[in-house]
Amino acid sequence: MKNTLINDRIGALREWMRARQIRAFVFPSTDPHHGEYVPDRWKGREWISGFNGSAGTAVVTLHEAALWTDSRYFIAATQQLAGTEFVLMKERIAGTPTIAEWIGQVLGSGQPAVVGVDGMVFSAAEADDLRKSLSAAGPFTLASDADPLEVIWTDRPPVPLHPVMVHPLCYTGETAGSKLERIRRRLRELHADGMLVCALDDIAWTLNLRGSDVHCNPVFVSYLLIAPERTVLFTDLRKMDESVRAYLSETGVGLEDYEAVRDALAGYEGTALLLDPCEVNETLYRAAVGKAVAAPSPVPRMKSVKNDTEIQGYRNAMLRDGIAMTRFLHWLLPAVEQGGQTELSVDRKLTALRAEQPLFKDISFDTIAGYGEHGAIVHYEATPETDVPLKPEGLLLLDSGAQYLDGTTDITRTIALGPVTEEERHVYTLVLKAHIQLEMLKFPAGASGTQLDAVARQVLWREGYNYLHGTGHGVGSYLNVHEGPHQIRMEYKPAPMVAGLTVTDEPGIYVEGRFGVRVENVLLLTPYMNTGFGDFLQFECLTLCPIDLTPVDISLLTVEEVAWLNNYHQMVYEQLAPHLETDVREWLRNKTLPIAK
Amino acid sequence: MKNTLINDRIGALREWMRARQIRAFVFPSTDPHHGEYVPDRWKGREWISGFNGSAGTAVVTLHEAALWTDSRYFIAATQQLAGTEFVLMKERIAGTPTIAEWIGQVLGSGQPAVVGVDGMVFSAAEADDLRKSLSAAGPFTLASDADPLEVIWTDRPPVPLHPVMVHPLCYTGETAGSKLERIRRRLRELHADGMLVCALDDIAWTLNLRGSDVHCNPVFVSYLLIAPERTVLFTDLRKMDESVRAYLSETGVGLEDYEAVRDALAGYEGTALLLDPCEVNETLYRAAVGKAVAAPSPVPRMKSVKNDTEIQGYRNAMLRDGIAMTRFLHWLLPAVEQGGQTELSVDRKLTALRAEQPLFKDISFDTIAGYGEHGAIVHYEATPETDVPLKPEGLLLLDSGAQYLDGTTDITRTIALGPVTEEERHVYTLVLKAHIQLEMLKFPAGASGTQLDAVARQVLWREGYNYLHGTGHGVGSYLNVHEGPHQIRMEYKPAPMVAGLTVTDEPGIYVEGRFGVRVENVLLLTPYMNTGFGDFLQFECLTLCPIDLTPVDISLLTVEEVAWLNNYHQMVYEQLAPHLETDVREWLRNKTLPIAK
Repeated sequence: MKNTLINDRIGALREWMRARQIRAFVFPSTDPHHGEYVPDRWKGREWISGFNGSAGTAVVTLHEAALWTDSRYFIAATQQLAGTEFVLMKERIAGTPTIAEWIGQVLGSGQPAVVGVDGMVFSAAEADDLRKSLSAAGPFTLASDADPLEVIWTDRPPVPLHPVMVHPLCYTGETAGSKLERIRRRLRELHADGMLVCALDDIAWTLNLRGSDVHCNPVFVSYLLIAPERTVLFTDLRKMDESVRAYLSETGVGLEDYEAVRDALAGYEGTALLLDPCEVNETLYRAAVGKAVAAPSPVPRMKSVKNDTEIQGYRNAMLRDGIAMTRFLHWLLPAVEQGGQTELSVDRKLTALRAEQPLFKDISFDTIAGYGEHGAIVHYEATPETDVPLKPEGLLLLDSGAQYLDGTTDITRTIALGPVTEEERHVYTLVLKAHIQLEMLKFPAGASGTQLDAVARQVLWREGYNYLHGTGHGVGSYLNVHEGPHQIRMEYKPAPMVAGLTVTDEPGIYVEGRFGVRVENVLLLTPYMNTGFGDFLQFECLTLCPIDLTPVDISLLTVEEVAWLNNYHQMVYEQLAPHLETDVREWLRNKTLPIAK
Repeated sequence: MKNTLINDRIGALREWMRARQIRAFVFPSTDPHHGEYVPDRWKGREWISGFNGSAGTAVVTLHEAALWTDSRYFIAATQQLAGTEFVLMKERIAGTPTIAEWIGQVLGSGQPAVVGVDGMVFSAAEADDLRKSLSAAGPFTLASDADPLEVIWTDRPPVPLHPVMVHPLCYTGETAGSKLERIRRRLRELHADGMLVCALDDIAWTLNLRGSDVHCNPVFVSYLLIAPERTVLFTDLRKMDESVRAYLSETGVGLEDYEAVRDALAGYEGTALLLDPCEVNETLYRAAVGKAVAAPSPVPRMKSVKNDTEIQGYRNAMLRDGIAMTRFLHWLLPAVEQGGQTELSVDRKLTALRAEQPLFKDISFDTIAGYGEHGAIVHYEATPETDVPLKPEGLLLLDSGAQYLDGTTDITRTIALGPVTEEERHVYTLVLKAHIQLEMLKFPAGASGTQLDAVARQVLWREGYNYLHGTGHGVGSYLNVHEGPHQIRMEYKPAPMVAGLTVTDEPGIYVEGRFGVRVENVLLLTPYMNTGFGDFLQFECLTLCPIDLTPVDISLLTVEEVAWLNNYHQMVYEQLAPHLETDVREWLRNKTLPIAK
C-alpha cells in the first residue's frame, strides 16, 4: 500500500528543489545544537521519511529517495519506509554505497549539480566532510543556506518554549560570573577574544540556568556569545520571567532573541572568535567568516571537573536514588511471582518510586528494561508493541536514571527473576568481574580512557566475549547523563583523566536471542597517591544499590573481587539502612551480607 | 679552555652562510633514510657541535650557537659542549625556548630572514613542522636545498660501501617478485601508480637483500622506486657483485646510482607517486612535486606480518640464542663471585657466546648492561668511563640481542648477583607480574597496542610505580630490532594487532640512583578463538631463557602467574636441555624447577 502522506511530502520537497535548481537534499538526525535528543521542530528526517529511529540520514533527489541507518534499525526502518519512495540503505553492510557515492551514481558524475542541506542542522565539521566526499564523487557543490522545511512543513512545531530557571549556588558551587571569568581566561590562553557556545548543556552550566526544552536533558534552546566586552544569551525572551532576567542582568549577561545570533556573528566586534567546528553549525560558522578560530571548545572540560558542592550534590542524589532503587528491588521479585508485571509496568513502578524522592525532576534517559532476549538488544526501549510479561526466571536488564536538582544518576542492574541457566550465571559473573576490575584500578593522572578500557574487558576477552559499546561516559551535574570530553572506550579518546571527573563503569555481554547482562555504577575520580612516578588516581563509587549476587558463580571470583563486593555492600547498607522502612531494610541486610570465597 | 676545533668549524659554516645570505642553519640527528642508527657520513650535528648523543639538534646563527637535547644527555652534553660556542638548551624544561622561538629571539622578528636546513636529512613532515613553527615565530622562510657540510666538512666520511647479499628464500619464505606484486596491488587500492621506498629495512625486506652499512641493522643505503612499468634500486653499484646483479636482473629490478634518485623522481613517468611524508626526506619529496600522493607507506605493515618460514626461523634463532643466554647465565654468578667482572666484561662474554652459534651475524643493538644504579638509566650503555665492577649482590639489568640469518632476538633479564634488598625483591616481583599479565592476555584481533598497554602496567600503578617507555615493539626477521607500525605503548598508536606479528613484552621499574628491573620476551601473535564476538588473538612466547626466580616474592604472585611461570620454565627446559652440556643442563634444570604458591 502506498504511503501517500510521505510521498506527498517528497513531492512538495521536489517542487521546492526544482525552483532552486537543487538536485539532491540531505536530512540528518541532528539539530542546530548538535544534541543527543532532538526537539520535535528539528525532526526533519523523520517528517520527510517517516522513519523515527535515533540515527539515520534521508536523501531525496528529483527521482529517487534513500535512507541510511545502522543495523539496530534495519527491521523498524523496513516497516516504516514501506509504501514510501524511500529505499533502505544498510550502513556498514558490504555493497552499501556511501551517501556521496549514491548521489554520484544517481545524478551521474558527468555534469555539475548542487546538493542542498540546511546548514543549521549540520555541524561545520560534518558539512566539511560531506563537501569533501561529494567532490570526490563528482562535480557537486554543497548549498547550505536554505531550509525547505520552513516552506513545505506547514504544521512544523515551533522552537520549544519552556520556562528557564536559575540553578542556585547551593547546587552549582560556583557563580556564573566566576565561570565566565574562567572561560575568558582560557580563551586568552588560546589566543581568542571570544567564543560562541552552542551546546545546550555547556550554556546551562556556564550560566547556572536550567530548562526543559529537551527530553530528559534539563537545558533550554539558546546560544551564548562571549565577546570581548559583553556576554549575550540568544533565546526566546518569553522563557525568562522577571527574576531570571534580573539574575542575568546582575551577572552581566545581555539578552537577545534566538534568531538574532547570526547577525551578531556577522557583526562580531572582536578579531578572533573561537568556534568548535564539531559543535557550531555550518550556517553560524560561515556567518563568522574571517574571524573564526577553529579549536575544540574549552567548556566541556571545565564542566566535567566537578567542584565540592557538585560532588556533595551527587552523594545526596545517589542516596535518594539508592533508596528508590532498593525499594524497587525489594518489591520486584514478589511482584513478578504474583504475575501481571511487564517491562513497561516495572519501568513505571521504578519511575514512580523515584518521583517520591525530594528534588526529583525527571528521568535522565529513557529506561532500558529488557527481559530475556530483549536484554541482548543494547538500545532496547520497550514499547506497547514489544512489551513482554516478566516470568519468575531468567534475567532482567534494567538501565535507568534520574534528574535530581542536586545530581544526575545512571545505574544498570541485571536481576535474576528466578532460576537462571548455567550460561546466564557464567556470563553474569564475568560481567561482574569486569566491572569490579575497572573499579579497583589505580592509574596515572592524565591517562586517557582508551588506555584504561582493556582493564574491564580482559576477563571477557579471555573467554571470547566482548561488547561493542563504550565502558564509560561522563555524567552531568543535574545536566545531560552523557557528558564529555572524557570517555572510557576502545576508540581513541585523548581527553585526559583528572580528579573530579565522574564516569560510568558499565561493561556488558549480550547473547543474541537469549539474554543480556550489564552492571553499571557511576564513579568519581579522586587522588590516590603521589610518588616519584607522578600523581595517581582511583575511583570512588557514588552509586548506592545492591548488586544481585544470586546469579554469581563465586568460584570464578578472586579473593580481591570478593573483598570488593563485601566492602561495597557494607557501604551500601550503612548508607541506605537509616533511611529505609523495616521490611526493606531487612531485605537489604540480606542482600548485602558478606559472601565467602 | 676553548674548543678551537669546533669553533673553527662554526666559523667555516658562518662563512658559507654569509655567502648565501642564510641567517641560521639547523642540524638534526637523522639521515636521508630516517633510520634509528645514523652512518658516520650523516653525523653532521655531532661534527658541528661535538655532541655525540643519539638525540639532539644544533642551530648556528651568524653570532650564536645552541644545542637542544633531552634529560638523558644533559650531563654528557654539558661536558662535550664546554669550550665551544654552543649553549645547551634543555628540552622539556620550563623556560627552554623551542628552536623556532629561539631563532625568533636571536634574529629578531622584525625583518625577513632565511633559515637553512639540508632537506636530505629532514623528513618532509618534519620540514613542514619546522616551516610552520618558524613562520609563527617571525618572517622566516626555510631553504632546504643546500648542504654546507659538502663544502666545509673536508674529511667527511663517504656513503657506506659494504657488500650486499641475497637473503635466500629458505629464510624469507617469499620471493621479492611476489612481494613487489603485493605492494603494487596495494598501491592500486590506494589510487597510486608507484611509490618511493626510503626506509632501509623496507627495501631490504622487499628485495630479500641484506647489507651491513648501518650499525646493528643488516641493511644497505639505497632507495627503491616502484614505477608503473619498472622497479629501480638506487645504490652504489660497487656494493653488488655479479651474483647479486644477476639476482636483481632476474627479479626485474633495475639498478641505478644512489645519486640518480632525485632526477628519477623529477622525471617520474606515472601520475600518482605514493610518498610517506614521515619517511621520505624533504628534498626528494619536493623533487616529485605535482605527482606526490601523501599517504602512510603500506610496506611496514606487510613486512611486520611474518610468514611461516620467518616464524620457523625465529624459533630456530631463539633456540640458539637461548643456548647462548643459558650458558652465559650458568657462567655469570661464579664469575662474579671470583671477581674481576664488570659491565663491559660480561657484555663481551655474552657476545662471544652468541658468536659461537651458527648463523650468528652481529648483535642487534648495543647491549645495555646496567649494574645497581646504572640499571635505572633506561638508555644506559656502559663505556670505559662508566664501567663498574660487579659485586655478588644486587641486580644486573641485561638487555641484549643478536642478528642471526634466520631471525633477530631481543631479550632482557634482570639477575640477582647475590643478596637483594626487600625493595629490590618487591619491585622485581611487580615487574615480573606485569610481564606475565601481558603474556597471558587474550584480545580481539584489530585492537591497537594503546588499548593493551594498561594490562601490563596495572599491577605497577596500584603501588604508584610506572615506566615512561613503551611496553612493546615489533622485531624484524634478520632486520631491525625495532620495527613498526604496531607498538604497545601509552601514546596512541592505531596500527591494529593481527596474527603473525612479533612484539616484545618489556615492562620495567627504574628506581633512580638505586637499581632498575626489566623483564623482556619476544612474543608472536597467534589466533586464539573465533566466537560470535569475532576473532581473538593470544601471545606465544618465542624467547627461550629462564627468568631468575631468586629475587621473587612468591607470596605476591597469583596462582595463575605461578602456573604461567612453571609452564614457561618447563618449555624452556624441554627445548634447550637436549642442546646443553651436562653442567649447564643441570644448572638449567635447577633454575626451571616448578615453584609452589
